[in-house]
Amino acid sequence: MAHIDLGNDLPGIRGPMAYSPATARPLNELAEVLLRSDDNSLSRGERELIGAYTSSLNDCFFCQNVHGSLAQHYLGCDMATIDAIKLDPQQGPISDKMKALLPIAAAVQRGGRHVTTGLVEKARDEGATDREIHDTVLIAAAFCMYNRYVDGLATWAPQDRQVYVDRAPRRAGEGYIDFDLYK
Amino acid sequence: MAHIDLGNDLPGIRGPMAYSPATARPLNELAEVLLRSDDNSLSRGERELIGAYTSSLNDCFFCQNVHGSLAQHYLGCDMATIDAIKLDPQQGPISDKMKALLPIAAAVQRGGRHVTTGLVEKARDEGATDREIHDTVLIAAAFCMYNRYVDGLATWAPQDRQVYVDRAPRRAGEGYIDFDLYK
Repeated sequence: MAHIDLGNDLPGIRGPMAYSPATARPLNELAEVLLRSDDNSLSRGERELIGAYTSSLNDCFFCQNVHGSLAQHYLGCDMATIDAIKLDPQQGPISDKMKALLPIAAAVQRGGRHVTTGLVEKARDEGATDREIHDTVLIAAAFCMYNRYVDGLATWAPQDRQVYVDRAPRRAGEGYIDFDLYK
Repeated sequence: MAHIDLGNDLPGIRGPMAYSPATARPLNELAEVLLRSDDNSLSRGERELIGAYTSSLNDCFFCQNVHGSLAQHYLGCDMATIDAIKLDPQQGPISDKMKALLPIAAAVQRGGRHVTTGLVEKARDEGATDREIHDTVLIAAAFCMYNRYVDGLATWAPQDRQVYVDRAPRRAGEGYIDFDLYK
């Protein structure tokens, strides 16, 4: 049971978002720009993977499955592959650039000051642009917020991971702007 | 020096916000709704204090001084008082309700799962509403993002804390929506 009466039985972040539409709007708009904008050299799958990875480090069940299932949808793999990447990005079937960006996300998860010049130089050596480094930092930072919002209010989440996989194609099509919230 | 070339010499979060206006917009809109909306039973000073406190726990110099100086501006105290509250909220000149809400913010800073039923019940016993508990969680979560964005990119910050105090009245008047960014 959630810590407060949300007045709805929606899962995960959707519960507090329906409870508080005024804050849901910028939260959703941030996710839309960060994770779905076409003006980005990181693919949608790569960006969702950064979010899923950060959420796994924060032990947020809902977010790592929502965004892990979107990552496998976009990347054309399965949840077992996403799980393996979350456990050890360096062994996963991802680009060397992503293998250098995910440690930056992990550093951000521990705290901003953990991002070192060495981590940034390594990413640049693997071809990451300033924009990609910026977006990696902000995606990881944003998930440190979303994860805390979800778990700090003790929202509930479906435990069957197939639910998230089944829902991913629809969410990929609809995006993060939930117009129903703002009626 | 920042980890990436931001193309400007603005301090703190203003640097990456000018670098990336598309993400700055929802980041600023979230701050505006959370910290300044009149439709809230927590005062602007109390909300800024939650942000400053969370930023101090995250060791973010820029954010704790920007928002600490706004807190002292709104609350009519000085920075020494804000510093004392950050060090030990239970001894500070704040309401019993705030003394129960700040530990919730501290729990969120450590991770969402650290918010316990006991902490929430204690806040409720001191008169906190569901909305106030919700906003405390989301403010603390949001500062876990802002702090990481600021420090994860290694932005610079004025070291003279008086700069922040001097700027607070103007920032209090103007709010967080920086229309210059979106021209």
